[in-house]
Amino acid sequence: MLRRIINAQGTRTAASTHFYPAALKDAVNLSSACGSRGSKIQEPAGPKVVTAVPGPKTKALLKELNEIQRVLVNRPALGVYPGKDWPQKMRDVLLAVAPPGLDMVSTMMCGACSNENAYKSAFILYQTKKRCGKLEFTEEEVKSVAINMPPGAPHLAVLSFNGAFHGRTLASLATTRSKAIQKLDFPSFDWPVAPFPHYKYPLDQFCNENKKEDERCLAIVCELIEKWEKKQHPVAAVVIEPIQSEGGDNEASSEFFQKLQEICIAKGISLIMDEVQTGGGPTGKMWCHEYFDLPTPPDMVTFSKKMMTGGYYFKRELRPPQPFRIFNTWMGDPSKIVLLERVLEVMKRDNLLNLVLETGQHFKCGLHQVEKEFPNMIHSVRGRGTLLAFTACSPQLRDKIIVNLKKCGVMGGACGPAAVRLRPALIFEKKHADIYLDILRTVLKSLK
Amino acid sequence: MLRRIINAQGTRTAASTHFYPAALKDAVNLSSACGSRGSKIQEPAGPKVVTAVPGPKTKALLKELNEIQRVLVNRPALGVYPGKDWPQKMRDVLLAVAPPGLDMVSTMMCGACSNENAYKSAFILYQTKKRCGKLEFTEEEVKSVAINMPPGAPHLAVLSFNGAFHGRTLASLATTRSKAIQKLDFPSFDWPVAPFPHYKYPLDQFCNENKKEDERCLAIVCELIEKWEKKQHPVAAVVIEPIQSEGGDNEASSEFFQKLQEICIAKGISLIMDEVQTGGGPTGKMWCHEYFDLPTPPDMVTFSKKMMTGGYYFKRELRPPQPFRIFNTWMGDPSKIVLLERVLEVMKRDNLLNLVLETGQHFKCGLHQVEKEFPNMIHSVRGRGTLLAFTACSPQLRDKIIVNLKKCGVMGGACGPAAVRLRPALIFEKKHADIYLDILRTVLKSLK
Repeated sequence: MLRRIINAQGTRTAASTHFYPAALKDAVNLSSACGSRGSKIQEPAGPKVVTAVPGPKTKALLKELNEIQRVLVNRPALGVYPGKDWPQKMRDVLLAVAPPGLDMVSTMMCGACSNENAYKSAFILYQTKKRCGKLEFTEEEVKSVAINMPPGAPHLAVLSFNGAFHGRTLASLATTRSKAIQKLDFPSFDWPVAPFPHYKYPLDQFCNENKKEDERCLAIVCELIEKWEKKQHPVAAVVIEPIQSEGGDNEASSEFFQKLQEICIAKGISLIMDEVQTGGGPTGKMWCHEYFDLPTPPDMVTFSKKMMTGGYYFKRELRPPQPFRIFNTWMGDPSKIVLLERVLEVMKRDNLLNLVLETGQHFKCGLHQVEKEFPNMIHSVRGRGTLLAFTACSPQLRDKIIVNLKKCGVMGGACGPAAVRLRPALIFEKKHADIYLDILRTVLKSLK
Repeated sequence: MLRRIINAQGTRTAASTHFYPAALKDAVNLSSACGSRGSKIQEPAGPKVVTAVPGPKTKALLKELNEIQRVLVNRPALGVYPGKDWPQKMRDVLLAVAPPGLDMVSTMMCGACSNENAYKSAFILYQTKKRCGKLEFTEEEVKSVAINMPPGAPHLAVLSFNGAFHGRTLASLATTRSKAIQKLDFPSFDWPVAPFPHYKYPLDQFCNENKKEDERCLAIVCELIEKWEKKQHPVAAVVIEPIQSEGGDNEASSEFFQKLQEICIAKGISLIMDEVQTGGGPTGKMWCHEYFDLPTPPDMVTFSKKMMTGGYYFKRELRPPQPFRIFNTWMGDPSKIVLLERVLEVMKRDNLLNLVLETGQHFKCGLHQVEKEFPNMIHSVRGRGTLLAFTACSPQLRDKIIVNLKKCGVMGGACGPAAVRLRPALIFEKKHADIYLDILRTVLKSLK
């Protein structure tokens, strides 16, 4: 097993040199270290160079990679080398399920660093546009950045929404706006926060109210963008979840997202769709934002969790104009692509997105039935696919529901002030939904 | 292979519930999804609870975990569950090689997020001390943090050194001070930067000069701490590499590190040793800072790269007083501990730390010989174990040396303005060093 993982991590490079005494990389170290030093290993007597470096095979692969993920091409001598099959894997696995219209992808370690790097890409694009595509930096920029000051380290902002969760590293945390305890005691950035629509349910009975709520929130987005522009701290990116998960499984209308995108395009701001929770199938589509009928794709879509690896898809214009600007040692983990490949295979083989839609419809109907039976206890059943939720009439009741579900062997997730979120596996069937609904009824009866 | 990885990632929890219809976590999803839906799977008819939740086994394991890594205990219902063997693995693998005096560890995804979380731990400790250990937050703190403002999001700083590299997520990047291109266009924090000692070589001929250099740098550290204190933006942590790698393989004396620690202790500042490059054996000790004879361990030691997983060791007082404050979904990757376990086994079996010391001594002698032979081309041979470097007489010459080494099949790493760093594997032997030295001689002759 060990060796297969190591190979998947990219031990073999396509370089035409056969021996690297000075800089055997970690993966090779490990691979070699696993054989006993005493045993006869087929070790060449010294380096042997059979072509110019880089060799023709490397060049061909680099060219291929450049089409997919420019950043990998520019790894430094001591970084981790992309494996020979990496471009192919990126195409067959990650790009095969890319959101429509996005054909570039960069892998990362987790959701937080995927968002951090998406923000960085947006900052680079914003500043590059500002200098009209010029690739040189001024002496003042280079000098000031060494002490973390503008103009080299400019005052740029990312706008996020109340209730948002985008991670816990300090910059991603600056856009996270769910629980105070996640943010307290940490220095942060002066970045704007807009309200996320708060809808009345059932949606079809409150069309006008909810439309007004959309308009209210979007007007504040515009005000904030202008306010930050005026204080010379412009917004370079807007980041938003298609369904706010941690913040309470809050959904917004397709119209809201369409208009938000319009605002971003008008202002030259990158729109980042954070699909860390929603991506990978639980809504019945691979990417939740596919429901929104956006006239053009979002500029970036970040992912993690169900996708096994962190990363983000992006538009070509977001490729940094210089190498090494979006980079880290690991840049994701090829071993996780092996897992993802198998997951996607099974999703396709068993038509799991369809199952999610069928189960989801059945499950949501069932939940609507339960909310009718217990109108003073739960309400606002919502969600897409099997990514469903309902709200309890008080935070205390919500907590009791979760404790009692657990006692019956059912895990229920708390989110927002009083919501219970459902996050079943993609293989969840109607019969499982029925078991959940029965137990939920029992629990609610016992708490009456 | 797939199933074994999945198990290593912690599919099985010790909870006494056998069925989680509502919240099967990703790992379980995958495991189940790999079986065909059509085939007869032994699936229970519904949840079956055989003890109270959490059950006695879970309680015993949580107690065990609490001793090692409090943060894992507090995972939310929808997070990734620690596997049954996780506490044992942490003890047998990560804690077995902990730096002397540090008995707490938290795993993370990569070097950058290890540093980010170490900074967060330092901020929490600093603020907790400020409120005299009180666990409650004021209403003003809770309100202000929602808009990223003090006092909830206080102005706190991390001091780092010129030439430092601590990662590229925005907060770790604020402490990175090597190349401008890594930092340009990104908003940053107003954090202080001190000079890192710049020594004259050979060290034994410039004792007085280098001692004065230490004193100069330490005096500026003190000045900066006071300056930031005065502008009510106090330094909560100092982060430093035992040997600055990216910045040019710059080393500092044991006395420098001892006095730096003294300053930190006197000022109530956490000292973070960033061993992402140096940790895991290349210096001939597991942790490079072990060379410094510090009277008490550094408060935190961060790691990644050779350790296969990111993470940091820390003192008990740095455990956050409330749960969930240092947390993310993945919190590292148990599959990497499996790799690390094997690496450590082989390191022990083949006595690789000793090999590093022997090879390193031989290699360094050889490099000293080469610098004597080519005094107008290279100088300042330095380093510990096989983590060695030399400086070329100009950046242009350095670049030529690296290109020509590569043509001869040898990878050479550029670092700092004109240095060449050596990063051989732990299994590198004297005969490999000799091959390198021969080729280096050939290259230098050809460039004369």
